[in-house]
Amino acid sequence: MCGIIGMFSNKNIAKDLYYGLYSIQHRGQESCGLAVADDNENKIKYIREMGLVGDVFKEKQIDYLNGSKGIGHVRYSTAGGSIIENCQPFVGTLRKRNLAVAHNGNLVNAQVLKDMLEEDGYMFQTNSDTEVILYILARYYKGDIVESLKLTMDYIKGAYALVILCDDALVAARDPHGFRPLIMGKRGDEYIFASENCAIDILGGEVIRDVEPGEIIVVKDGSVESFNYSQNYKPVKKSCIFEHVYFARNDATIDGVNAYDFRIRCGEKLAENDEVDIDLVVPVPDSGWPGALGYANAAGMRVSEALVKNRYVGRTFIKPTQEEREIGVKIKLNPLKRLIKDKSIVLVDDSIVRGTTSRQLVKSLREAGAREIHLRITSPPVAYSCFYGIDTPNRANLIASNHTVEEMRDYIGCDTLKFIDINDMLDVAGSHTNFCKACFDGDYAVKIHDIEG
Amino acid sequence: MCGIIGMFSNKNIAKDLYYGLYSIQHRGQESCGLAVADDNENKIKYIREMGLVGDVFKEKQIDYLNGSKGIGHVRYSTAGGSIIENCQPFVGTLRKRNLAVAHNGNLVNAQVLKDMLEEDGYMFQTNSDTEVILYILARYYKGDIVESLKLTMDYIKGAYALVILCDDALVAARDPHGFRPLIMGKRGDEYIFASENCAIDILGGEVIRDVEPGEIIVVKDGSVESFNYSQNYKPVKKSCIFEHVYFARNDATIDGVNAYDFRIRCGEKLAENDEVDIDLVVPVPDSGWPGALGYANAAGMRVSEALVKNRYVGRTFIKPTQEEREIGVKIKLNPLKRLIKDKSIVLVDDSIVRGTTSRQLVKSLREAGAREIHLRITSPPVAYSCFYGIDTPNRANLIASNHTVEEMRDYIGCDTLKFIDINDMLDVAGSHTNFCKACFDGDYAVKIHDIEG
Amino acid sequence: MCGIIGMFSNKNIAKDLYYGLYSIQHRGQESCGLAVADDNENKIKYIREMGLVGDVFKEKQIDYLNGSKGIGHVRYSTAGGSIIENCQPFVGTLRKRNLAVAHNGNLVNAQVLKDMLEEDGYMFQTNSDTEVILYILARYYKGDIVESLKLTMDYIKGAYALVILCDDALVAARDPHGFRPLIMGKRGDEYIFASENCAIDILGGEVIRDVEPGEIIVVKDGSVESFNYSQNYKPVKKSCIFEHVYFARNDATIDGVNAYDFRIRCGEKLAENDEVDIDLVVPVPDSGWPGALGYANAAGMRVSEALVKNRYVGRTFIKPTQEEREIGVKIKLNPLKRLIKDKSIVLVDDSIVRGTTSRQLVKSLREAGAREIHLRITSPPVAYSCFYGIDTPNRANLIASNHTVEEMRDYIGCDTLKFIDINDMLDVAGSHTNFCKACFDGDYAVKIHDIEG
Amino acid sequence: MCGIIGMFSNKNIAKDLYYGLYSIQHRGQESCGLAVADDNENKIKYIREMGLVGDVFKEKQIDYLNGSKGIGHVRYSTAGGSIIENCQPFVGTLRKRNLAVAHNGNLVNAQVLKDMLEEDGYMFQTNSDTEVILYILARYYKGDIVESLKLTMDYIKGAYALVILCDDALVAARDPHGFRPLIMGKRGDEYIFASENCAIDILGGEVIRDVEPGEIIVVKDGSVESFNYSQNYKPVKKSCIFEHVYFARNDATIDGVNAYDFRIRCGEKLAENDEVDIDLVVPVPDSGWPGALGYANAAGMRVSEALVKNRYVGRTFIKPTQEEREIGVKIKLNPLKRLIKDKSIVLVDDSIVRGTTSRQLVKSLREAGAREIHLRITSPPVAYSCFYGIDTPNRANLIASNHTVEEMRDYIGCDTLKFIDINDMLDVAGSHTNFCKACFDGDYAVKIHDIEG
Repeated sequence: MCGIIGMFSNKNIAKDLYYGLYSIQHRGQESCGLAVADDNENKIKYIREMGLVGDVFKEKQIDYLNGSKGIGHVRYSTAGGSIIENCQPFVGTLRKRNLAVAHNGNLVNAQVLKDMLEEDGYMFQTNSDTEVILYILARYYKGDIVESLKLTMDYIKGAYALVILCDDALVAARDPHGFRPLIMGKRGDEYIFASENCAIDILGGEVIRDVEPGEIIVVKDGSVESFNYSQNYKPVKKSCIFEHVYFARNDATIDGVNAYDFRIRCGEKLAENDEVDIDLVVPVPDSGWPGALGYANAAGMRVSEALVKNRYVGRTFIKPTQEEREIGVKIKLNPLKRLIKDKSIVLVDDSIVRGTTSRQLVKSLREAGAREIHLRITSPPVAYSCFYGIDTPNRANLIASNHTVEEMRDYIGCDTLKFIDINDMLDVAGSHTNFCKACFDGDYAVKIHDIEG
Repeated sequence: MCGIIGMFSNKNIAKDLYYGLYSIQHRGQESCGLAVADDNENKIKYIREMGLVGDVFKEKQIDYLNGSKGIGHVRYSTAGGSIIENCQPFVGTLRKRNLAVAHNGNLVNAQVLKDMLEEDGYMFQTNSDTEVILYILARYYKGDIVESLKLTMDYIKGAYALVILCDDALVAARDPHGFRPLIMGKRGDEYIFASENCAIDILGGEVIRDVEPGEIIVVKDGSVESFNYSQNYKPVKKSCIFEHVYFARNDATIDGVNAYDFRIRCGEKLAENDEVDIDLVVPVPDSGWPGALGYANAAGMRVSEALVKNRYVGRTFIKPTQEEREIGVKIKLNPLKRLIKDKSIVLVDDSIVRGTTSRQLVKSLREAGAREIHLRITSPPVAYSCFYGIDTPNRANLIASNHTVEEMRDYIGCDTLKFIDINDMLDVAGSHTNFCKACFDGDYAVKIHDIEG
Repeated sequence: MCGIIGMFSNKNIAKDLYYGLYSIQHRGQESCGLAVADDNENKIKYIREMGLVGDVFKEKQIDYLNGSKGIGHVRYSTAGGSIIENCQPFVGTLRKRNLAVAHNGNLVNAQVLKDMLEEDGYMFQTNSDTEVILYILARYYKGDIVESLKLTMDYIKGAYALVILCDDALVAARDPHGFRPLIMGKRGDEYIFASENCAIDILGGEVIRDVEPGEIIVVKDGSVESFNYSQNYKPVKKSCIFEHVYFARNDATIDGVNAYDFRIRCGEKLAENDEVDIDLVVPVPDSGWPGALGYANAAGMRVSEALVKNRYVGRTFIKPTQEEREIGVKIKLNPLKRLIKDKSIVLVDDSIVRGTTSRQLVKSLREAGAREIHLRITSPPVAYSCFYGIDTPNRANLIASNHTVEEMRDYIGCDTLKFIDINDMLDVAGSHTNFCKACFDGDYAVKIHDIEG
Repeated sequence: MCGIIGMFSNKNIAKDLYYGLYSIQHRGQESCGLAVADDNENKIKYIREMGLVGDVFKEKQIDYLNGSKGIGHVRYSTAGGSIIENCQPFVGTLRKRNLAVAHNGNLVNAQVLKDMLEEDGYMFQTNSDTEVILYILARYYKGDIVESLKLTMDYIKGAYALVILCDDALVAARDPHGFRPLIMGKRGDEYIFASENCAIDILGGEVIRDVEPGEIIVVKDGSVESFNYSQNYKPVKKSCIFEHVYFARNDATIDGVNAYDFRIRCGEKLAENDEVDIDLVVPVPDSGWPGALGYANAAGMRVSEALVKNRYVGRTFIKPTQEEREIGVKIKLNPLKRLIKDKSIVLVDDSIVRGTTSRQLVKSLREAGAREIHLRITSPPVAYSCFYGIDTPNRANLIASNHTVEEMRDYIGCDTLKFIDINDMLDVAGSHTNFCKACFDGDYAVKIHDIEG
């Protein structure tokens, strides 16, 4: 769970990078960073810190980051602990050249590669995958960034979308399965790459297309070139379906699928064969809204904002004790009693991971007087961990990994529980082969040899 | 625009006050404070600071505020500048007694009273109305808080909901027009007062009723008593309609009206006689949602989340320059192009104050390809300033104060513009007399003699 | 233990006040504040915060405090707890007029006056003496600051040096005993008042004289006037001798006595009749230096910097545990072993309050190999608490209040212990009547009726 | 200008490292860091930040750094800019092993080595010399830290004192000239290494000896071993004389010389042949004190603290403008006028670098009425930059590099100016060959091939 951005221009783009990064803040709230090539000083200047984009970058920081090409990163730790050393972009110098890398995703063979590099005397200053990528890149980089990146991509396995800044170019690349998104856009003569198109939209740019699986795009002064990372290997698209289920913004269009459309239609699909007698449809805010709208449309019902969200509950919230846990739920989502009392409701959410939040919400709605609660989930049960960059917990903590739907229903305490069928979801997505859906069915496109699941 | 809370218990209630205050954070984000009576030390301990509840209060602060009764306040400056000295609650000692006051509202005769007190040699350390209230209260307080509060209420004019903490009691009071809300609740033997019922809900309490206009409620050990502030004066209820239009949370029920119901039905009213040929209904998030849902219900249309909100844009946002202003709008609300392109849409918002945001949104939607934009507002034009505690700008800055609806439409750039009729809105509210609607029609229930409008 | 400054000019003096306050930082490190009269806006602007002058005031703050007259304060809490509400200057408005007060000293009848004012309905928002002064001043202030200050001085008893800022004047006053210092200076047409002359020196001003006990000096545009606070009462000078013993800087000249001269000569006095066979004279840094130099001069010995001070040990120091206490002493003052080993030394300090530091130092010197340690103190035993503004502990904690010199020597562990004779000290000071020496002999010039000793 | 510490124990030593680092804070105030080997987790935990030891490390940080061996660093940037990435210790992992390095000094061939490593594909994430050391060390480290350190020391040239932490050992080493100090101490079974003995003293340890030039000392469980870094190369001691002139604390004894003794005797030497008719000897605080005491002893004069230092002037001081520069000097050092007026004084300082401070001080003393000012410096003129770790400016900015003594006297404005003769200084130090005195005579023991002087 990270977001990346890259921009190539011939005027100062620090503030554009800032706005772009701001727009993908939802992809990572732990740390953020920007690196720009300072054309005058022949160096890469960067700032990376723990915290939100709006807190880390003030006018002083933006003024410092003067340059016409640069990259940015927001991060929520997956691999790599939550410390400042792991903040991105990673920046380095070698052979009088400068290099910076921002990475969204997760390698599955990072440890093997670390071992290999350490055998050759390399030393790691962080425990981030990205340092591995940077070191291999640096090893082979003697001026031709494409050649060295191709070699690097021969080594690294797993999920990665990359933006790379070097002295004369901005490079974007996506792993051969295209697990993680990377969109290419244009604004006049300027090029923008970002994890989601909203970064391109808000900067007034036009989306061109997705970077393709296994593709390397190099932007230099006066040229944009595309390369396949390998002649011998044909990329197999496995775009992450969970981006559409939950992670991406509603305005994201990734690999041909728009997240909002997808969510609406998954809600509709769920309603199509659902024969339950209800009074109102209630979304779990905010991510349950599109599914609830779709469900209600298809069912001919009204959507009611019966769970009122507190917009200020962020991380600076004193943890409630065990006894106060009920307060903890209600302070985030307070049931609007007069809407709920004596009603039979369909509660729509995008997914169930651990099941604890659903259980508490159901309890809260029961206390508010709900007569019947029918929980509908617009994704299949999450039964497998993600090793490609989504921060799902260990399998043991995924309720669906060791419970039947009926057992889940019993634990959560709702009257009925239904998930969308995985095939229905793929029908909505428009393809049964182009998506990675391993978190639902365990079909991992890249073998996980050195990570414990 | 402030929120208050008070709680009376026989066990430590600091953390409950914290959670309660958290739930009404939307009523004021500039500063916050809590004051509790420390039963052992015969004093009132307090912490008040600039910032959000979650940032100001950590476990250390809550541990310090040990006590079984207390009050709290969140503040967005109306009268009184934005400085730490104006943070509430105000706390003082007099005649070996302790007193703390938290105040939501705005006096209209504060300056006159200041002059009077200053003639008597009093001195003001802040420029807050609340210091005036506290000084008059202190002047008459010789042990009987009710008598001194009655006398105080004879002096002060305007809008006020008060919670007062003294050594042996918690007092709640509302001005004779009941401009500002104050709800009374109970949890077992404990009493809770708050600006909105969500604070009572999330603490697991039951709402009892609104504090009545002109009513004083005193909670002591073993007794709860209610007083009319005056034998001679009959209160005239003028509950603020703008709480329902915009300010209160959807789950708020104030003076018999639920905000969410009100908003939904205002949307429905707007749609009832609206004959416009549209493809979809789009809310301006977040406050336009209920109106849009109501409009869509009545019009038999779909609501589409076509403006995607960035949840991280708060105050720590570098101001865009004039040239970047378009980015500034889009970073907050990005139009979902594929939904909007070539569509005729109804855009629903709760109110128009300055008109600038609406204008920018319309521009943004046009650029996203909207064919027609019909702006519908679930409140009448705001044409008069509020002197009773809502932070509306000077009349000169209210677009409706000096423009016709057609002129407004032209400025904003939409195809059509309609506001709900004021009588329709009052029909929805269920009374044409019980509400203050001065911001719409200039009919001020309390004369504004010493404030320049 | 506080420091005050006031300045009257016809150009912006915020930065001068800042530098002046910086120079008297040693008089109080807990909080600081500046208030200036903004001539254009007819108001007093101020900033006051917990922390050091250099941390609280940056260029932004100084820019804000634009004005041609103002006052400042540094504070170490004596009466009044250590909270932001007690930070000075106190500022208020009354009868369209502005008033600010900064106060060094301690009233002995604050509680009585509080009771009186509270009877009249006044309320106190802090527990600072200064609020009492401000309220009485405000009560009588109808435009003539001198009249109201005279009346105020009839009420308040104890120690106070005051600088008062009102719309048209800067006022300086000192209590009828002149317990606390206040120096008057001039720089061209500008007037400066400060607790110590260093503030005047560093601003390039010339010291004129001490404000006299019971004197009120008023500086307005074009005039400087002096008043006696009362026709009937003849002031009796009781200048604090402890300023010279310890508190004031070496460059301070207060009421005719220079602190450095005084300290040197007290050291000499001690040596005069001292017949002890020693190898070297060692000061306890930093305050023991002048006494040690004086002692060494008179004894014909060398002073050796045998205790090496760590200049970085401030408040941000993790408290050593009981076991680590020895480290705690050494980290502050490390004995220079090769100087001390097998030597007989005279250790010179300015005073003994609790005796714990001396005891630890002696232990530390013994461990470093000192053969004999003769402790010499350049003031008499501190046996009584100060109620006039020096932060001495309760009598019970003063080792001299309940131990003979021999008992003290035994506790501290030195070979011999000698204090300067009180009459010798007064001879050095040049007067046996003009000084308050109550901390040494309990002869309090103003009765302490409402403070528990 | 850095300080290092290392400690090997069998119990938790985080707090000891903290106290030790606190005691050498004077060697670097920009950043600090601690790294400890966590025996249970087989990893090195570390914290390094910009700021002072007391500000960076609180109880929470110390609790986190649980471990029985560790190293620490305080830094004032010489090579390597002032950014967080350059904070030490540097920490890395390689071949399942952990390594941390803290370094005091400055390599003269860092760029050459960087080029070499970069040719081999290594990449640098900082611009610190220490990263170079760490990478070479890592390259050769396959379990035997001594072998890899010997190889590393064959590569690196210049000044370095090192403490290295690996999984099973603490290593201390000093370059073959011993430019920078490193002291070895013992406390029971525990070993301590530090830049100055005060760190050992305050922890209650005993100094054993200096680490020798070219020596490597390895402490493991149950063994302490010493190695020469090379069989073929005989170390030539060139201990930095400037440590004794200015940098080290008075209690430091480095390579057989005690700083305080040295400073006193340099003052005496200066006085021996000085025939100037003066009234008093005035030190420039704090570093001029020992020299002034020595001078006064030899001259039979009194030392007077006639420049009063403000102990609070640190970095948080608003820079005076050109016009206010006089204030800037006086706020730091205020002349005690009554001591100085009409007097002929000897002003004693430890060194002259740029000459600007001396010039301002002389001006300030003249204004205070000094009749004659004779400036005496206890070191020779600093005419050459240091490339071995002392932060002297470029030659162009050293006043002695391009002015005669008479020209300097004229610039500074004193009546006479004398420096100690370099041979006299070396006599005091006890050796004419064991010290690096390049800053005085340009005789660099290690050639400076890749640094511009």
